[in-house]
Amino acid sequence: MKMTSTVKKILANYESDNPGTKANLARILLHGKLGGTGKLIILPVDQGFEHGPARSFAPNPPAYDPHYHYQIAIDAGLSAYAAPLGMLEAGADTFAGQIPTILKVNSSNSWASSANQALTGSVEDALRLGCSAIGFTIYPGSDDVFDMMEEIREMSAEAKSVGIATVIWSYPRGANMPKSGELALDVGAYAAHMAALLGAHIIKVKLPSANIEQKDAQKAYDGQDWSKQSDRVAHVRQACFNGRRIVVFSGGAAKGTDAVFQDARDIRDGGGYGSIIGRNTFQRSRADAMAMLDKLVRIYKGQE
Amino acid sequence: MKMTSTVKKILANYESDNPGTKANLARILLHGKLGGTGKLIILPVDQGFEHGPARSFAPNPPAYDPHYHYQIAIDAGLSAYAAPLGMLEAGADTFAGQIPTILKVNSSNSWASSANQALTGSVEDALRLGCSAIGFTIYPGSDDVFDMMEEIREMSAEAKSVGIATVIWSYPRGANMPKSGELALDVGAYAAHMAALLGAHIIKVKLPSANIEQKDAQKAYDGQDWSKQSDRVAHVRQACFNGRRIVVFSGGAAKGTDAVFQDARDIRDGGGYGSIIGRNTFQRSRADAMAMLDKLVRIYKGQE
Amino acid sequence: MKMTSTVKKILANYESDNPGTKANLARILLHGKLGGTGKLIILPVDQGFEHGPARSFAPNPPAYDPHYHYQIAIDAGLSAYAAPLGMLEAGADTFAGQIPTILKVNSSNSWASSANQALTGSVEDALRLGCSAIGFTIYPGSDDVFDMMEEIREMSAEAKSVGIATVIWSYPRGANMPKSGELALDVGAYAAHMAALLGAHIIKVKLPSANIEQKDAQKAYDGQDWSKQSDRVAHVRQACFNGRRIVVFSGGAAKGTDAVFQDARDIRDGGGYGSIIGRNTFQRSRADAMAMLDKLVRIYKGQE
Amino acid sequence: MKMTSTVKKILANYESDNPGTKANLARILLHGKLGGTGKLIILPVDQGFEHGPARSFAPNPPAYDPHYHYQIAIDAGLSAYAAPLGMLEAGADTFAGQIPTILKVNSSNSWASSANQALTGSVEDALRLGCSAIGFTIYPGSDDVFDMMEEIREMSAEAKSVGIATVIWSYPRGANMPKSGELALDVGAYAAHMAALLGAHIIKVKLPSANIEQKDAQKAYDGQDWSKQSDRVAHVRQACFNGRRIVVFSGGAAKGTDAVFQDARDIRDGGGYGSIIGRNTFQRSRADAMAMLDKLVRIYKGQE
Amino acid sequence: MKMTSTVKKILANYESDNPGTKANLARILLHGKLGGTGKLIILPVDQGFEHGPARSFAPNPPAYDPHYHYQIAIDAGLSAYAAPLGMLEAGADTFAGQIPTILKVNSSNSWASSANQALTGSVEDALRLGCSAIGFTIYPGSDDVFDMMEEIREMSAEAKSVGIATVIWSYPRGANMPKSGELALDVGAYAAHMAALLGAHIIKVKLPSANIEQKDAQKAYDGQDWSKQSDRVAHVRQACFNGRRIVVFSGGAAKGTDAVFQDARDIRDGGGYGSIIGRNTFQRSRADAMAMLDKLVRIYKGQE
Repeated sequence: MKMTSTVKKILANYESDNPGTKANLARILLHGKLGGTGKLIILPVDQGFEHGPARSFAPNPPAYDPHYHYQIAIDAGLSAYAAPLGMLEAGADTFAGQIPTILKVNSSNSWASSANQALTGSVEDALRLGCSAIGFTIYPGSDDVFDMMEEIREMSAEAKSVGIATVIWSYPRGANMPKSGELALDVGAYAAHMAALLGAHIIKVKLPSANIEQKDAQKAYDGQDWSKQSDRVAHVRQACFNGRRIVVFSGGAAKGTDAVFQDARDIRDGGGYGSIIGRNTFQRSRADAMAMLDKLVRIYKGQE
Repeated sequence: MKMTSTVKKILANYESDNPGTKANLARILLHGKLGGTGKLIILPVDQGFEHGPARSFAPNPPAYDPHYHYQIAIDAGLSAYAAPLGMLEAGADTFAGQIPTILKVNSSNSWASSANQALTGSVEDALRLGCSAIGFTIYPGSDDVFDMMEEIREMSAEAKSVGIATVIWSYPRGANMPKSGELALDVGAYAAHMAALLGAHIIKVKLPSANIEQKDAQKAYDGQDWSKQSDRVAHVRQACFNGRRIVVFSGGAAKGTDAVFQDARDIRDGGGYGSIIGRNTFQRSRADAMAMLDKLVRIYKGQE
Repeated sequence: MKMTSTVKKILANYESDNPGTKANLARILLHGKLGGTGKLIILPVDQGFEHGPARSFAPNPPAYDPHYHYQIAIDAGLSAYAAPLGMLEAGADTFAGQIPTILKVNSSNSWASSANQALTGSVEDALRLGCSAIGFTIYPGSDDVFDMMEEIREMSAEAKSVGIATVIWSYPRGANMPKSGELALDVGAYAAHMAALLGAHIIKVKLPSANIEQKDAQKAYDGQDWSKQSDRVAHVRQACFNGRRIVVFSGGAAKGTDAVFQDARDIRDGGGYGSIIGRNTFQRSRADAMAMLDKLVRIYKGQE
Repeated sequence: MKMTSTVKKILANYESDNPGTKANLARILLHGKLGGTGKLIILPVDQGFEHGPARSFAPNPPAYDPHYHYQIAIDAGLSAYAAPLGMLEAGADTFAGQIPTILKVNSSNSWASSANQALTGSVEDALRLGCSAIGFTIYPGSDDVFDMMEEIREMSAEAKSVGIATVIWSYPRGANMPKSGELALDVGAYAAHMAALLGAHIIKVKLPSANIEQKDAQKAYDGQDWSKQSDRVAHVRQACFNGRRIVVFSGGAAKGTDAVFQDARDIRDGGGYGSIIGRNTFQRSRADAMAMLDKLVRIYKGQE
Repeated sequence: MKMTSTVKKILANYESDNPGTKANLARILLHGKLGGTGKLIILPVDQGFEHGPARSFAPNPPAYDPHYHYQIAIDAGLSAYAAPLGMLEAGADTFAGQIPTILKVNSSNSWASSANQALTGSVEDALRLGCSAIGFTIYPGSDDVFDMMEEIREMSAEAKSVGIATVIWSYPRGANMPKSGELALDVGAYAAHMAALLGAHIIKVKLPSANIEQKDAQKAYDGQDWSKQSDRVAHVRQACFNGRRIVVFSGGAAKGTDAVFQDARDIRDGGGYGSIIGRNTFQRSRADAMAMLDKLVRIYKGQE
């Protein structure tokens, strides 16, 4: 836990937060192989809720065991591990103090009839399980987005008062969001900005495409070439208070390692703060995942 | 109440729980004829709420009396007895300290217009009635499932803080769940996994068929033969944190004893933790039920 | 208030209740002309809420005065008097200590757009007015029945903790209940059973017809002749935990005294605990009502 | 946990208690080698607080380890184990569900300047640690006894509402109690009676001498020979609502086993419910203690 | 934050604690130069409250600045830094996440008229300042010790529920404690034991002398030679649940480094968990203090 000037500079951006919340942000930023670099890699394992256990873990059956994820996050030297209540409860004692954890406090499932999630955890749970942050998903574009925003407003305020950080997953989706818009650059930047405006400390969005979805926004994007992914990352970073808020990018469905590595390079080159990488980790064999994560670390360190 | 290494190992999986909750889990695991084996048989009598008294008890009229169920659960050496508020209130004093009880805290009925249940009990009720656990049903696939999840999240957190365990009945049902999916293997494993993620200590699901309902999940099940019921049980166990959470199976409607016994053997061989067996118990004469339960005990002990 | 072995036996069925609640049940069971017999007649006057004052009281104008009902219940030696808040407030001082009272805590009215009722009283009201019990209506078959059940769960828990008994009026009604089912035997038994499961001390249902409404329940009733009303009463009693819970029957609309007397004989012969008889009391002249009630008492005493 | 008619009769004396509290009393009465006999032996280890660790444990150094006491109580088949917060916290998980525990919620120490104790545990602690009862000391004769009585009144009320039993240690002591009175028969019976009046479920007093301390009480004891210890025990039992409340006797300082055995025979013959025996257990070697406890069990079973 | 088997074994002793509290204990045990060894050195700076600023800081004026203490604790690789509210508030943001902190929540001062302390911090403060533990002083031997014990009971229960550890400073002092007893071996072991019984995770006592103060305790110490300080440390460790609770020793007034080093060797050799060393740190020049602390680390590592 040796402080660096890079991390100190990042923490200084959270200028309204109490030292407890900053200490938890610092724990994440100082932990693991990227500790102190200002970059981070987070392992999220909420796929079981979203897609069911077999779709999530059958490709790599040891991953059915909650300890598997704690262990690989620790062994790979990742920055933090994020999961829903039951997954954390099943390992929080064994791995107490070994890696910062993020309690995912809302969750959806494959049969949800609305673009919303259920509250499945609380700030009290985060405290008793020793978590550094809560994680919460909002769906900009959903009919229920105001409810979701009001829920995180309340939980985040409570979390901040007891020194727990807030991570917002901001995923455009819902009745008011055409499929084509979900990955659009303007929409993704907007979704990230909304999370920042809601008071998130860490923002998680998907890597955006070059598509511009909103007619009204088109003009703002005209005259610039958005074909390079790193430029798009840089724009999302801009939307996160010009980099004053940490933004990390998810890689989506499992894919080839080359694509994963290129994504990381683009995130790095565009000034993104890192990756949140779930399925690409736990749907590989442990050996392959460890090799991939090791290379990702080197990429973020600028060594590859 | 003699501890065994098998039970100690099971309890160790509940690593985030306080000793009060573990003591109640231990009470269930150490009680009755299966006490100490790590297997359990639970008698649930919530059919009166779900189907009405005549459909439930006319086949064996002594079962109209709440004492009947307490007594048979005790005499047969079962692990626990689960029922709604009124049923427990009607016998909790007479049978205090004689068998662990589970207060079913939500209940549906035959005229319910939505796939949901009403809250009909509380953690305070569980404490004043001396219960070891609360029981709660969720309906994955229902439009109301988020509400149900939020209800159990809150009740379970309260229960955990006062040393009461949580049992979740996870029954796929509702507007977003085709009839064909209710017993499907992928759906049942998913339902069990959701209960585990919600923080359940004990999970109750139905024995799944070999059907795979979700197109997206098909690939995860391809290439394996799911025709053996014990293999399907093993998969559900996998979905319960690779066996870190106790999962028991319900037998459904009353049927021939041979089918009941084969189910139990399959549960045992697949690594399931036991049976929760209501109608097949109380819709038989007491003598027949006692004989059947006795044989079930022997099956779970590996003697038949 | 001399205790009898009959009443002692009834009280013993309420084995989870504190002595305060039992004392209030005892007050009802030991009061009036039927005191000690284990039978009871309750005067309910909630018709004003349900049907309006003129439909309720014009047939016998003195009944507009709340004191009228207190006085007749006392003079006729009834077991208890039940009414909504305002009716009790208007006489609770004058008649303090003269007859057990039941505060009806929810109420509907003629213009209600849903099968539901409004909360119009509280446990605190019951205490300050010296009531022995609260009364609450549920409508099995209503879209709102879950809400009603959750309301009484909460109120009943509060009442039990302060020694107040709970009476549930269980009246099948609502969007999911065909008119033909409201008085059906299977439905009535089910409605009574639900009240028992909700933790009611005293259950009020209507006298059921011989109709069997639910297809799924038909089999459970086959092979028995249900044409005798006393047999139907016996079945409802069975549904009330085999008689462990007091069940009383309402007579419905005002009718001829012969019919009222026959109902009472059938209730008595079927093992029912008594009558709750409103309109047939207050819509007659005082003299007629007194004569009728006197005969009812003799019927329940087995003298007629 | 097999119920016996003896235990059922004892439980029936606690007629105002809810089933939760009775279940915890039943757990104590049904556990261990004396389970079901209506007799009990409790191991209390609060000497460390009262006398310090060396005076308590130096005679048998393994007893410095909290696990030692849990283990011997379990292995010797005692009825319950009582200790202050820290002692229970240090073993409550390892031994969860293996023996009923009693959380001693107030404690004194060797330098106390008043005859009082500090609150060192709570009902919430008892729940989270899975305890069956709280234990509390009062000092009749102390200037502070009203404060102590008010403390246990409040804690006991809370405990009863959540199903936790109350054990009161009633030890005459303080400015208003001459040394000569502390063990006097009249004083001891009076102290036991006060505990019963305060609502204790189990009362712990010292074995009284034949001395009668209070002049005003002398007359009540005249004309009877109090030289036999069993007669004095019988009188204390009388003072505990004629045996309607469980009373156990402590043996005081470590002494020879013959004296311990004679005490137990006298307690048994006088109708006392058992022994609470601390120093005489843990200040012997484990082998000696096990032999002594085994013989005590046989004495209470009437076999010696 | 690499876990070691030594630390895992220590954490396992805190078996009733939630993962949050264990994570904070782990943070302290894994931090700094002694991280993972199971030994710890804590810097406490509460002298300003106790003795005033000049007596505390004039010997080394940079120590007037709260940042000075944070910085030296971090630079010397100590395990944790403990101080009252204001001292932590003055640096908690600058040093967030760089070293575990302990909020001293009660404090005395030079003019105190009783052996007591004022509450000067809260668990909420600890959370908002990102502290891993609260620290609390009790004075066994004081007339007010019961009040102090009740205060820490309440604060510690709150702390444990939100994942904050408890450190108790147990310092014999007060009207009932002769000066000669304050450092006596029997008294010190007793004081440590009381802290353990109160539920402390970490216990801080002074290094005891060979004096035995209490007549009643003399016998327990007879027949053993207590002249070696390491034997006395071993006895105090015994009093801390046979080593199941971490006990650290304070060095008292500033003294020569040789004495400090010898103390550390004796603590180490006696099985103590480490030093809590204030004045000997901050009343030296920074260079001298750094050299001294470095050597202390090597001693605890067994390198000197």
